[in-house]
Amino acid sequence: MCLMHWAPSSYPIDMPGSLTVALYQCMPGPLDVAGNLQRLEGAAQQAAESGAHVLVCPEMFVTGYNIGHAAVLQLAQTADGGYAQAIAAMARRHNIALVYGYPERAPQGPQTVVFNAAQWISAQGERLLNYRKTRLFGELDSAQFVAAEPVATLLDLHGWRIGLLICYDVEFPENTRRLALAGADLVVVPTANMANFDEVSQAIVPLRAFENQIYLAYANYVGTEGDLQYGGLSTLAGPDGSVLAQAGREEALIVTTLSWPDLDSARRALDINQ
Amino acid sequence: MCLMHWAPSSYPIDMPGSLTVALYQCMPGPLDVAGNLQRLEGAAQQAAESGAHVLVCPEMFVTGYNIGHAAVLQLAQTADGGYAQAIAAMARRHNIALVYGYPERAPQGPQTVVFNAAQWISAQGERLLNYRKTRLFGELDSAQFVAAEPVATLLDLHGWRIGLLICYDVEFPENTRRLALAGADLVVVPTANMANFDEVSQAIVPLRAFENQIYLAYANYVGTEGDLQYGGLSTLAGPDGSVLAQAGREEALIVTTLSWPDLDSARRALDINQ
Repeated sequence: MCLMHWAPSSYPIDMPGSLTVALYQCMPGPLDVAGNLQRLEGAAQQAAESGAHVLVCPEMFVTGYNIGHAAVLQLAQTADGGYAQAIAAMARRHNIALVYGYPERAPQGPQTVVFNAAQWISAQGERLLNYRKTRLFGELDSAQFVAAEPVATLLDLHGWRIGLLICYDVEFPENTRRLALAGADLVVVPTANMANFDEVSQAIVPLRAFENQIYLAYANYVGTEGDLQYGGLSTLAGPDGSVLAQAGREEALIVTTLSWPDLDSARRALDINQ
Repeated sequence: MCLMHWAPSSYPIDMPGSLTVALYQCMPGPLDVAGNLQRLEGAAQQAAESGAHVLVCPEMFVTGYNIGHAAVLQLAQTADGGYAQAIAAMARRHNIALVYGYPERAPQGPQTVVFNAAQWISAQGERLLNYRKTRLFGELDSAQFVAAEPVATLLDLHGWRIGLLICYDVEFPENTRRLALAGADLVVVPTANMANFDEVSQAIVPLRAFENQIYLAYANYVGTEGDLQYGGLSTLAGPDGSVLAQAGREEALIVTTLSWPDLDSARRALDINQ
């Protein structure tokens, strides 16, 4: 298999332009859907004014993450439900794609279950990709969600092929790998990573980018939510394993422009599909 | 799939004892088979006296690595050839397992080809596992060798299940992963890593150990060989991602004892087979 953008002779014509990604590192807003949507509106406006093509929120941003089984059941919606409609309108208002985590109600065989999901809505308000977490993190996730089967679906934005993962998924190498082998140029990862797992931002995320020759965007919470203390350190890692941008432990909007020539250069150094 | 040693009730009876691994970080000896075997004898004796169960040499140790196509063809042997016989006798003399890289002559369909191989010979002189490199590194490897198909064969030593990779193989996550999913507790990697790729020892090897909950032993050269400058930094990484031992830029024999309880503890923190 060969990534379709690699043929040098096609570069001057076919090479995608740059892509600007904003990561919204924020406090969690447990059970406060209205407040979270209001905050998202402000962040979307700010990110759009900064020139970002897409704004990425943390895991389960719409409802909060550590809210318990009963609240998850009550607040779960279908992928085309009210959350999607409100956020699609917001995306159109600010002309920016939005990626947000939420509890997704969906059929599974004869049952209705809840997945830990993240959805990409385009600047035109289209639901381009809905992703469901495959690796549940301990009791916290298992009590709230059903694990999904791995998939390798990508979306296209200005010639960039983009996949989604959620939080713990990125720690298992086969998940990012699956998307890279399917042709991903960028993998976007909403997360809710705790303060005692800093190695995910500092070591795992940069290496996932390097070993797959992709950009990787990891958007985390800061602050506390119940008994959880989040670690921040939202990270944009480049295909050579470098950290292009990393937030600290405070709220932040980090805006990073991804370069197609840099991606191409890294791929010439290590061809994962050789 | 569940690793067979995990059931807590079986620990006091079935838990393997510790395993001591020696990494032989040395200068390359291009074209000097007799000299290399003589050096190996000395290192084997020293490692055995240090209590090591196994001594691991760098990639293509027996003949040198950067020796060119013609020399590789001339020096290549079958896995049970003279190199294996000499090293088996050495292993028996010092009662230590030996892992060494060499050019392997072998049939492939109607042809005879040369693989970049590494072989594990037990302290009793048995050829327990012969591994062939799957990911060739650029022109250097491609001019000398044929790439092998990936396999997931393991050997058993005192209850530890052990797999082999060679050099560039470890940079692609699916290779270590394949061995871990097959049940490996330790992956041993003879290498010939250049000085401008220090990130392999510093970042990739520790993360491969962490993400697979295994020990990983990476044995490199120092010094120069033709136009190659080797980087040393031979590394023994633990299943929690820590670097248990790392050599510098000089010749060294590093001897590290691996702990089964530590391996078990890391596996309880992150179950790759959940």
